[in-house]
Amino acid sequence: MLTVVSESRCFGGTQSVCSHASRATGSAMRFAVYVPPHHGTAALPVVYWLSGLTCTEENFIVKAGAQRVAAALGVALVVPDTSPRIELPGDRESYDFGVGAGFWLDATEPPWASHYRMETYVVDELPEVVADAFPIDTRRAAVMRHSMGGHGALSLALRHPERFRSVSAFAPIASTLRSPWGQKALRGYLGADERAWREHDVTVLLRERGWRGPPILVDQGMADPFLAEQLRPDLLREAARDAAVPLVLNEREGYDHSYYFIASFIEGHLRHHAAVLGVPA
Amino acid sequence: MLTVVSESRCFGGTQSVCSHASRATGSAMRFAVYVPPHHGTAALPVVYWLSGLTCTEENFIVKAGAQRVAAALGVALVVPDTSPRIELPGDRESYDFGVGAGFWLDATEPPWASHYRMETYVVDELPEVVADAFPIDTRRAAVMRHSMGGHGALSLALRHPERFRSVSAFAPIASTLRSPWGQKALRGYLGADERAWREHDVTVLLRERGWRGPPILVDQGMADPFLAEQLRPDLLREAARDAAVPLVLNEREGYDHSYYFIASFIEGHLRHHAAVLGVPA
Repeated sequence: MLTVVSESRCFGGTQSVCSHASRATGSAMRFAVYVPPHHGTAALPVVYWLSGLTCTEENFIVKAGAQRVAAALGVALVVPDTSPRIELPGDRESYDFGVGAGFWLDATEPPWASHYRMETYVVDELPEVVADAFPIDTRRAAVMRHSMGGHGALSLALRHPERFRSVSAFAPIASTLRSPWGQKALRGYLGADERAWREHDVTVLLRERGWRGPPILVDQGMADPFLAEQLRPDLLREAARDAAVPLVLNEREGYDHSYYFIASFIEGHLRHHAAVLGVPA
Repeated sequence: MLTVVSESRCFGGTQSVCSHASRATGSAMRFAVYVPPHHGTAALPVVYWLSGLTCTEENFIVKAGAQRVAAALGVALVVPDTSPRIELPGDRESYDFGVGAGFWLDATEPPWASHYRMETYVVDELPEVVADAFPIDTRRAAVMRHSMGGHGALSLALRHPERFRSVSAFAPIASTLRSPWGQKALRGYLGADERAWREHDVTVLLRERGWRGPPILVDQGMADPFLAEQLRPDLLREAARDAAVPLVLNEREGYDHSYYFIASFIEGHLRHHAAVLGVPA
């Protein structure tokens, strides 16, 4: 059962926020959907957006200016929340763990393991829910994300290439193993054994699994305050080269980590995905 | 003395938020400025945006997607906060009076009269502050606004045609005299004598002063929940007709009062102003 929380006309299409009882997370989950103008019988391709730390389903849809481009291309957008919104001990003690920081993986440590199952949610459950309620063909899907988790869009795409035909990122964490944010999250959600962490590190996944899809598109602001300590695009470039995976890494002089940066370059990412998903340009 | 609160590269230009000690309001005031990519010696035309109830200088710059168009046109954007942010008795008792609800006029009633002088601030002080600190020619100015106050952009432009060469609005209150929001604000800021209110009602100003500038551009969502009680575009159309003032009133089926509506049509407003301000299309 899907509840429509809000619905607004936007660029001739409809921007909705929905809520539903998720079986993956055992909680209510919210997500946003933008459906562009379309014919009644459409089965639209879809681009998922996975947000960064502290975000909800709302940040991207109000700040990125993506609907204009999605409307022009005839592509749907789906934006899940970044974590379950339930009360667990310690879940609000820091901005980078717990609420708003699900890191797009399935936790194995208690108490998180019962609810923080964001990988299963995004990969298995959400596409079904979306396909049931909207004129969207979730087999034609791409994924983009911002910042949080070397295992955000990049690792989900590398782990589930059957689900996502194309992938791109803004200011991604290249290696969770070598990022303080990532280390904290992996230890908390997966426990102390670092072998389990490797399954959620993009540089490891690139080297071990490769990527047969189209070039991975990444934009990185060179005035991003998290660049050197948390993000490390140099590690991403190195891993892609070792794995012979085509990577387009745009270094954007003067840009920071904000949505002003994302808005400036979102059009290129959406056009990249639309071309892969077979949308006439 | 201007303090830069934040600064981000955006579409090749710079989005800043500034703070300064205002002599008009006797308080610190914030405003946002977007400066598009330009040559060193530029004197850029400017479009002011006056926000609606509860907004700050931030809503428009994060939600409207205006920088993309402003960058393409070479037009600067200036967005003041909607009221002083000081403590006055009762200023937070309701969302539609006091903090976040300055209604773009100079209050005459105590205690508001000492600080709530938003008309003087926007018309006299802000252009000077902006011209001192940025490569902006404030003599080439237009003004747009959203919702609050029949005396927002429309009444400021009608009262100060020497300051604003062009004016447009999204979902404006057409007549403060006939809007519950407007009546509450006018009584609170100007006192019980309704004769003083007439100076801040757009339908009165249109009939009494007219407008010799280019057509006034208005977009109104027809699914706007405030349409019938607060906004009354029919009164605006009637007054413009009586005053023989050219008005382009676009009724947008299905659109509501949100920034999803504004973002959908902001490009047309900016292009309208840019043409008047002499920007080559």
